[in-house]
Amino acid sequence: MIVQKFGGTSVGDVDRIRAVADHIARTRKHGNEVVAVVSAMGKTTDDLIRLANEVSHSHPGRELDMLLTSGERISMSLLSMALADLEIDATSFTGSQAGIITDTDHTRAKILEIHPSRILESIKRGSVPVVAGFQGVSTDKDVTTLGRGGSDTTAVALAAALNADLCEIYTDVSGIFSADPRVVPTAHKLNEISYDEMLELAASGGRVLALRSVEFAKNHHVTLHVRSSFTWEPGTWVREENEEMEQAVVSAVSHDTSEVKVTITGVPDMPGIAARIFREIADVGVNVDMIVQNTSREGLTDISFTVPKDDMNATMNVAAQAAKEIGARDVYADPDIARVSLVGAGMKTNPGVTAKMFETLAKEGINIEMISTSAIRISCVVREDVIERAVQLLHEAFEL
Amino acid sequence: MIVQKFGGTSVGDVDRIRAVADHIARTRKHGNEVVAVVSAMGKTTDDLIRLANEVSHSHPGRELDMLLTSGERISMSLLSMALADLEIDATSFTGSQAGIITDTDHTRAKILEIHPSRILESIKRGSVPVVAGFQGVSTDKDVTTLGRGGSDTTAVALAAALNADLCEIYTDVSGIFSADPRVVPTAHKLNEISYDEMLELAASGGRVLALRSVEFAKNHHVTLHVRSSFTWEPGTWVREENEEMEQAVVSAVSHDTSEVKVTITGVPDMPGIAARIFREIADVGVNVDMIVQNTSREGLTDISFTVPKDDMNATMNVAAQAAKEIGARDVYADPDIARVSLVGAGMKTNPGVTAKMFETLAKEGINIEMISTSAIRISCVVREDVIERAVQLLHEAFEL
Repeated sequence: MIVQKFGGTSVGDVDRIRAVADHIARTRKHGNEVVAVVSAMGKTTDDLIRLANEVSHSHPGRELDMLLTSGERISMSLLSMALADLEIDATSFTGSQAGIITDTDHTRAKILEIHPSRILESIKRGSVPVVAGFQGVSTDKDVTTLGRGGSDTTAVALAAALNADLCEIYTDVSGIFSADPRVVPTAHKLNEISYDEMLELAASGGRVLALRSVEFAKNHHVTLHVRSSFTWEPGTWVREENEEMEQAVVSAVSHDTSEVKVTITGVPDMPGIAARIFREIADVGVNVDMIVQNTSREGLTDISFTVPKDDMNATMNVAAQAAKEIGARDVYADPDIARVSLVGAGMKTNPGVTAKMFETLAKEGINIEMISTSAIRISCVVREDVIERAVQLLHEAFEL
Repeated sequence: MIVQKFGGTSVGDVDRIRAVADHIARTRKHGNEVVAVVSAMGKTTDDLIRLANEVSHSHPGRELDMLLTSGERISMSLLSMALADLEIDATSFTGSQAGIITDTDHTRAKILEIHPSRILESIKRGSVPVVAGFQGVSTDKDVTTLGRGGSDTTAVALAAALNADLCEIYTDVSGIFSADPRVVPTAHKLNEISYDEMLELAASGGRVLALRSVEFAKNHHVTLHVRSSFTWEPGTWVREENEEMEQAVVSAVSHDTSEVKVTITGVPDMPGIAARIFREIADVGVNVDMIVQNTSREGLTDISFTVPKDDMNATMNVAAQAAKEIGARDVYADPDIARVSLVGAGMKTNPGVTAKMFETLAKEGINIEMISTSAIRISCVVREDVIERAVQLLHEAFEL
């Protein structure tokens, strides 16, 4: 049994939907059961949000979710009809009908459990289930959406609940690359990658898979295959790390220009001060990424951290207030930064990677402003205007 | 408590939706509880059907219903947001959430029962329920649509289930007129009309209210007020006939050009022959309207009947087959006919109406091809090219 997820561009118009129906037919002909999960067509979601902005300044989460979930209803019923045209019986299911139960946190609900009885019943009578991605029904019986990357999460969670052999994520790129091919023309497609590497890539600027869907796949041992619905060629397998998997020291260089650096200067260097700042930022729902605290001088220190650009204003408001209360000197935001990261499972056993990364950047005069590391990732914040050069240099230096 | 139903043109764009929200706010300010029922925005349903036609030749009813019901989701969530902008709490409900239980006859389901517990709970906490018209959930837990005029039916059925004081049907005309104002410039708006008259008008070409919603209103004693969401002026009340209501001999002239006349010639005039023909036509789901059987000559007779133009091909196939089997001479269809009808509750006690109608048409040389009557309606089939003249003459002759 294969769960096949088709993203917005994969069902972007009538021709693409017919191509997806053809592909499902072929997959079945090869002896597989298929469960399809679809996103809304192309720009549907953007169009609906534009309408909401035109009609009102108030967008209660429950109503926004009701609005946005109409998008998948359209794509899933059209795909079912396209399958019917190929004489394949298909049955579409909303998140609610598919038994996807979420919490009540509208616009970014979490899946609590899945009761796929109607999907199983559909498979049993030979009808291909076509499931709406991105949506569920809350414990309060209201329609919810799962937020960014929600359709990937639906597909992975369904694959886990149905104990499927594989979850295929069809998208508009042909897999996971060693770097963004627009920046590094010689970047190559990775044939396979471990969950942990994929998590680090997703967290450090990779836009192909949403972080939470990879987490879900790792926790539930769902094998993923990320591939193109335009070329249909084999893509990148994402699975458990194993001995046969080549442990590349560095698998990929990723970069991210979506963050901003916030610095609070003259912070009294006393226990609990930093905690207080970050608690208040967390309380307004902002995810802080990298944090650097300078060495203290005369009892004062500077604290820098990065947050998503979209959260800059909220963060600055909170940080300015907190700075005042704790007697810090100043708060400023610097949007002209970018982050370059090296990711590789083999890093764990190769201590020289950090040094080589710093040397490579230093040799070209690229200044490193912040550093953060995990067991299989090193990230450096640099000026935004040199980020592409940094990616190219590292891709070359590590012979990717 | 007022159930207010807003049709497709009433929520046709962002500005109209905001105007509807304003009107709901005003209605509440006057001390009323409001339950809103909405159709899909403007041409949404047509656009979705076009997409379905582009993507496939097969439109399984279940999937078509899933597709079309996305339309009301959009309008109802946008209206709820527009109300939120006016600081009015609103909660949208799908047909399923509103407890509208239907049979399993996809694309033209019948409402079986309504369990409006969530709507009542919403009213109780001061939140305006905004309900999707046209849709429900079947006893098989699948999404269904109610077919033509479905949103009116939703509104009337909800008004009955909630024991509302009134059901207002907002549309793009200002009420029910004594004739189509495009044909008869002097036609006037009727202030009130009985259920029976409204039923006859709806059945004889009036396009403002769907027949089944009027039947439902009559059976459940729901007072209707048909009015404009563009001018917001008082429209036409539709209610129980009572002594205060002026029993006009003729209230309105209606006309209908949507039917075709089918004639079977040389039919053996024996018991059971006509029944057999009409049973076979009924079995393919075609509603036969008027039927005329000529006086028999030499054991043979001609049978003419009218059916909707959309059903002409299906009818001709069945009729040709039946004609062959019963040894009739010939079958032909005539699309160039139209029907003009006089409707009035006072007709019951005024026997001269039929004669005056025939005289009026005869005086101008308009030939009557078929006649059918009820207690409060007389309809004549005439050539299509004289229908407007016939409507004008009758409107004038009966001093409407």
